[in-house]
Amino acid sequence: MQKRQLLYSGKAKDIYATSDPNLVIMRYRDDLTALNGEKRGSFEGKGAINQAVSDTIFAFLENRGIKTHFVKTLGDNETLVKAVTILPLEVIVRNVAAGSFSRKYGVKEGTPLKSAVLEYSYKMDELGDPMLAESHILALGLATQEQLNKIADSTYKVNDALKELFSRLGLNLIDFKVEFGVTSDGDILLADEITQDSCRLWDMETGVRVDKDRFRQDLGGVKDAYQDLLERLTRASTPTSCENA
Amino acid sequence: MQKRQLLYSGKAKDIYATSDPNLVIMRYRDDLTALNGEKRGSFEGKGAINQAVSDTIFAFLENRGIKTHFVKTLGDNETLVKAVTILPLEVIVRNVAAGSFSRKYGVKEGTPLKSAVLEYSYKMDELGDPMLAESHILALGLATQEQLNKIADSTYKVNDALKELFSRLGLNLIDFKVEFGVTSDGDILLADEITQDSCRLWDMETGVRVDKDRFRQDLGGVKDAYQDLLERLTRASTPTSCENA
Repeated sequence: MQKRQLLYSGKAKDIYATSDPNLVIMRYRDDLTALNGEKRGSFEGKGAINQAVSDTIFAFLENRGIKTHFVKTLGDNETLVKAVTILPLEVIVRNVAAGSFSRKYGVKEGTPLKSAVLEYSYKMDELGDPMLAESHILALGLATQEQLNKIADSTYKVNDALKELFSRLGLNLIDFKVEFGVTSDGDILLADEITQDSCRLWDMETGVRVDKDRFRQDLGGVKDAYQDLLERLTRASTPTSCENA
Repeated sequence: MQKRQLLYSGKAKDIYATSDPNLVIMRYRDDLTALNGEKRGSFEGKGAINQAVSDTIFAFLENRGIKTHFVKTLGDNETLVKAVTILPLEVIVRNVAAGSFSRKYGVKEGTPLKSAVLEYSYKMDELGDPMLAESHILALGLATQEQLNKIADSTYKVNDALKELFSRLGLNLIDFKVEFGVTSDGDILLADEITQDSCRLWDMETGVRVDKDRFRQDLGGVKDAYQDLLERLTRASTPTSCENA
C-alpha cells in the first residue's frame, strides 16, 4: 500500500492518502501537546510507542466485536486504517474524578464516580472544545440521534473492555477520550488513537500516573511512563514460562 | 395561612414556613441580579410584576396537566406553594441561539436551532454553575435516572405550552430556565418561578428584548419591559369586545 499525498496534519499524527480511496495511512509523530495545543513538547520514540500501544488496543477491541478503523500495522510509525470523516466530537468516559471534571464540579481527584460518565466536547480549538449535551449535538447538526446511539453503545463497550485490559496490566483506567468517524457507506467506526495521550492511567498499587498528565503537570519521567505502558502491554501479550507453568 | 419563619433567602425571593409543613410561602422581592450574582439592581414593583407573571404562567401550566408547586396567589407579593426540596439543577431549554450558547458554540444570536436544546447546569455559585451532562448528574448523585426522565418530559411539555402562550402575546420564546423540586412523597414538581428573570423573550415584530437581558446588557427600559409582559398577559386573559365580536 503506497503512501500518497498528505491529507491532514493533526497535533501528533499525519494522515496520508493511499491508492485505495477507502484506506488511509496514519503516521504517528513524536509530538506531545497539552492545554488545547498551547503547551508543546516531544521525545524521540514517542510516535513509535503510541503507534504500538494504539494498534495493540485497537486489535484487542476489534476482537471484542467493536467496529474500528484499524486495518494493520505498517512500518515507520505508520498504521493502515479505513478512511472516515471524523465527527467533530470528543467522546469522553470518566470512571474516576480527575482533571477538568474535578475542577468543574468540585470533586476531589481520585473519587470513584457512582456510574461512568459519558461526556461530549465540540472539537473546535478556537472555541476551547466546549462541552456538549446530546441535545446540543442534535441542535447544531453535528451528528444524528442514530449516530449518537451507536457512539454511546460502542463507547460503553470500549470502557468495559479497556478497564479489563488495563486492570490486567495493574493500571486503573481513570478516564479516556475517543473519536468516531463515518465511512463513505455511513458506518460509524471507532477511529483516531487510544494511547497515553488520550487515557488517564494510574498504577493500581502506587497511584503513580502513567499518562500525559506527567507532561501536562510537569511531573517528569514522561518518556519512562510511555515506555512503561508499552512494556506492560507487551508482557501481557507474551505469556511467560511462569504463567504457563 | 400564616407566614412563619424565614427558611431561605434567594437572589430575588424569600421562602417562609407556614403552619402546614407541606406548604410554604414564596415572597418576591424587587431585586435583580445577573452574572452569577455579581451585577445587582432593583426597581420598585418588580417583585409584584414577577409574582403576577409567574403565578399566571404556573396556573396556565397546571391547566395543561403539568405538575407544579403552585397553590394560590396571596397578597403582598406572596404566593402559596407546595414545600419541595429543590434539586440543585438549572434546567434550560433553548429554541433559538442566544447568550452563553451563542458564545460557547460560536452560533450567531437569533439562529433558530434544528431542535430544542435541553441543558442542565449545576446550581452552585462557587463553581460558576457548570453545565452537566445527564451522566454527570447520575455520577454525582444529584438526581436519579427516573427523576431525570420525569424532568425532561415535563420540561419539553413546558416548552411547548410556553411557546404557544408567548406567541399569542406576540413574543418569541428564545430560551428559559426552570427548576424542579421533590415533595416529601417523592413527587417531582415544577417549582421556582417563570418570569422575565428566567426567560428570553423577543418581540416577534421588532425583535426587541422584553426580558432580563435589558438589565444584563444595560439596554435601558428594564422596568418598562417587565411591565410590558404583564400587560400583554393581562390583555390576553381579558377578552376585549373586539375579540368577542
